[in-house]
Amino acid sequence: MVDNKPLLIRISEEDNVEIVVNENGLKAGTKIKDDIIVKEDIPQAHKVALKDFEEGDEIIRYGNVIGYAAKRIEKGSWINQYNVTLPSSPKLDKLEFATNLKELPTLEGYTFKGYRNSDGSVGTKNLLGIFSCVQCAEGVLNRAIKKIEEELLPQYPNVDGVVPINHNYGCGVAINSPNAKIPIRTLKNISENPNFGEVIVVSLGCEKLEADRLFKGMDKNVIVLQEEAGFEEMLETIVSRAKEALEILNRRQREICPASELVVGMQCGGSDAFSGITANPAVGYAADLLVRTGATVIFAEVSEVRDGLHLLAPRIVNQELGEKLKEEIAWYDNYLDLGSVDRDANPTPGNKQGGLANIVEKSLGSIQKAGTSPIVDILSPGEKVKKKGLVFAATPASDFVCGTLQLAAGITLQVFTTGRGTTYGLAMAPVIKVSSRTVLKDKWQDLIDIDAGRIATGEVDIKEVGKEIFEYILAVASGEKKTWADKWQIENRLCLFNPAPIT
Amino acid sequence: MVDNKPLLIRISEEDNVEIVVNENGLKAGTKIKDDIIVKEDIPQAHKVALKDFEEGDEIIRYGNVIGYAAKRIEKGSWINQYNVTLPSSPKLDKLEFATNLKELPTLEGYTFKGYRNSDGSVGTKNLLGIFSCVQCAEGVLNRAIKKIEEELLPQYPNVDGVVPINHNYGCGVAINSPNAKIPIRTLKNISENPNFGEVIVVSLGCEKLEADRLFKGMDKNVIVLQEEAGFEEMLETIVSRAKEALEILNRRQREICPASELVVGMQCGGSDAFSGITANPAVGYAADLLVRTGATVIFAEVSEVRDGLHLLAPRIVNQELGEKLKEEIAWYDNYLDLGSVDRDANPTPGNKQGGLANIVEKSLGSIQKAGTSPIVDILSPGEKVKKKGLVFAATPASDFVCGTLQLAAGITLQVFTTGRGTTYGLAMAPVIKVSSRTVLKDKWQDLIDIDAGRIATGEVDIKEVGKEIFEYILAVASGEKKTWADKWQIENRLCLFNPAPIT
Ligand SMILES: [Ca+2]
Ligand SMILES: [Ca+2]
Ligand SMILES: [Ca+2]
Ligand SMILES: [Ca+2]
Ligand SMILES: [Ca+2]
Repeated sequence: MVDNKPLLIRISEEDNVEIVVNENGLKAGTKIKDDIIVKEDIPQAHKVALKDFEEGDEIIRYGNVIGYAAKRIEKGSWINQYNVTLPSSPKLDKLEFATNLKELPTLEGYTFKGYRNSDGSVGTKNLLGIFSCVQCAEGVLNRAIKKIEEELLPQYPNVDGVVPINHNYGCGVAINSPNAKIPIRTLKNISENPNFGEVIVVSLGCEKLEADRLFKGMDKNVIVLQEEAGFEEMLETIVSRAKEALEILNRRQREICPASELVVGMQCGGSDAFSGITANPAVGYAADLLVRTGATVIFAEVSEVRDGLHLLAPRIVNQELGEKLKEEIAWYDNYLDLGSVDRDANPTPGNKQGGLANIVEKSLGSIQKAGTSPIVDILSPGEKVKKKGLVFAATPASDFVCGTLQLAAGITLQVFTTGRGTTYGLAMAPVIKVSSRTVLKDKWQDLIDIDAGRIATGEVDIKEVGKEIFEYILAVASGEKKTWADKWQIENRLCLFNPAPIT
Repeated sequence: MVDNKPLLIRISEEDNVEIVVNENGLKAGTKIKDDIIVKEDIPQAHKVALKDFEEGDEIIRYGNVIGYAAKRIEKGSWINQYNVTLPSSPKLDKLEFATNLKELPTLEGYTFKGYRNSDGSVGTKNLLGIFSCVQCAEGVLNRAIKKIEEELLPQYPNVDGVVPINHNYGCGVAINSPNAKIPIRTLKNISENPNFGEVIVVSLGCEKLEADRLFKGMDKNVIVLQEEAGFEEMLETIVSRAKEALEILNRRQREICPASELVVGMQCGGSDAFSGITANPAVGYAADLLVRTGATVIFAEVSEVRDGLHLLAPRIVNQELGEKLKEEIAWYDNYLDLGSVDRDANPTPGNKQGGLANIVEKSLGSIQKAGTSPIVDILSPGEKVKKKGLVFAATPASDFVCGTLQLAAGITLQVFTTGRGTTYGLAMAPVIKVSSRTVLKDKWQDLIDIDAGRIATGEVDIKEVGKEIFEYILAVASGEKKTWADKWQIENRLCLFNPAPIT
């Protein structure tokens, strides 16, 4: 259909490249402007040079430098990972904060039907969480979960599920290493996620991360396996405690809550060059709508914002918060340095095949998810969110590590954009999957919830898709719509961020 | 019964402490020798001072210094983590190699019934492994496994199971970091474990650890999710490939193989002060019997041998191998150092409550598992075993990280000793659980396979239990006996060792 005539997208007036929209790319010889003929076959989502570049010339996309020509590049040529050199990252001490704070007009009257918890938080699901303090408990816990799912769950139709909170931590780790605080607070905060109506804790009994240490001062329902007389008794104890919890959960009802009680995480994975012009800006528009209702929106992924920091810093509400951002980024720079890698370790082969030449281009597209509102707080990895509005969580970009840390921060729903396509899913929260290209939605009809690819072809605009995502969030949060990932129960396990040693 | 009269154990003539065997410990005032009266209540498995120690005096157990008196300790007092200071580790450049090589007489005629693979290796199980290249694939893979287990497996009674090889690696990681070679070779070698008769690989398609990179030059059965038209087709493709593999596996038969084809891993976890005098020496005796039949025995756990290196180095067959050991240990020392921890980060609260004052005492007990034969090879973490005889794998001591790396090394069965009690289990290989105390076996009748606690009370000796373990290994490897962990299907997931950064 559209493949007959060349279709290209430019984001900003200053850009000297355009993105190919045509599904089968553009053939050498195609005339795309009066004075530009494509020099070589260029795949969909990749960049065409709009001018002749001399070696070292700036390559501009999103109105920003994404790199420099590695050699002479003629007008109409394909610009990709092989002919672009990486610019240096914004210097932390050059960042300016709070110079571009744009308060958005509030939106009144939006609600959803959630599960109100005793601490005032509101869940989008009514889940029983069963938490292992240490990996040793996992094998037994999983047998118990199987029994609970088969024998108990069908009797409690108001309960959305029983979720094992398993992980690789708890013992055999350097628990007094300075960085151990990250996995420890992550686990503690995950147990407090609003989507859990009840939590049961299963401890082995001799692990380093003892339940008393992990949940200091908190009232928890703890089972210690070493105090049970063998496997069958362990199973019986876990199942009978689960039954008590399910009785309580089954009596809960959804109630109407203001949209300001939502905590929504934004993430991207399997990105391509369309992510930054279709799915991410649409999600950014939805983020702005959420912030305008008073809700909390969390974006994250340090290595993907690292090269767009000069654009985010002016939106950070004050200097003090700016300093926290600098600390988090400096910590991460040092962390990568110790592993002898740099930030360009982030883009995957898939990203690059998808048209993202390097981490700078990926970053500029990635930060579109954060919309335009002021950034009111910065979370260290694993910290719990305390404020409403737009919040940055300084997590790795790794999909499941970021997902786990957002769950610890307290998200009750996640929006996930993808270009290449990923089967990502979480057991603890619904994940709304947004595709950057229509070809992906056409292929993965039963995995992609919303197609933002229609933006590239001009069928709809960013605001329309943004509004659609916003309304879909409210419907899913209310239990009125179900994401594909929830329908198929695609549930990836948690993936802790533990930068401390294994012993 | 035995609790009426004091029961104590001393390992070596030179020891100046003894271990309390009585289940309820010893009360203050109990006379234990003509000239020694217990000064304070001392729990089971803990140490009694046999002499008056001045501050700085050597405390000797296993004939070796386990620490120094932190203050004056009177004869009959309790010696524990609070009054013992840690000695320094053996210096790597002072180690002497190949000075104590004791060739053991060969044992002929021992066999087991295993599954012979086309590469000549022999499995103790007949498993289908389904391997994810990246965590993104896990959610879909797990749904497929569920379908396969419910709908297909019952039709193939000769197949022992279908095991998902899931992990946290594959993307969102610094894949070009020097240390990335560890998780990568681990995954590659796990796919080659002899207990897998067939392996299917599930790739997302855009991950950093592409199937082609991971399995370079190897012929693998790969499914790429991004090439499938949605979730239902993914499921169908995985299930139909599994069906083909199950048909092949179901036609396999166990055949009689020499015991020399066994590859047995030794591990300990949840240790107490009895581990080093009952379970570990008995396992060490079994290790010697295995080596004498020509089998391969792998012991591991760097931080638990670190302080016993001066005893192991003389058993390393040559200087070149000694240099490899030094490299591995130096790498690990540096790794802990970067995390600002030292080797005493290893013992858990449970170890210490169990009577192990520090890592030196734990080490001396832990290395008993290695028996007495020469050490013929050293494996870096994740490397595959190449030699028969006793081999040291330089892995962390963390139970599941060590277990995963031993599976990568190629073990087809593991023996696991425990004092405090752990519910450890592996899906890929049978785990024989040996208790260090009878009280644990009495309590966990349906989890502990063999009780070595009887050694402490003098009921049986180390050789008898060692022989029993050896015979049990042959029976389990032949499918004639089933471990408790296999009976209950207690299957902890793999836990990769990735010392490189997350991106
Ligand atoms: Ca579920
Ligand atoms: Ca991500
Ligand atoms: Ca199984
Ligand atoms: Ca197909
Ligand atoms: Ca261990």
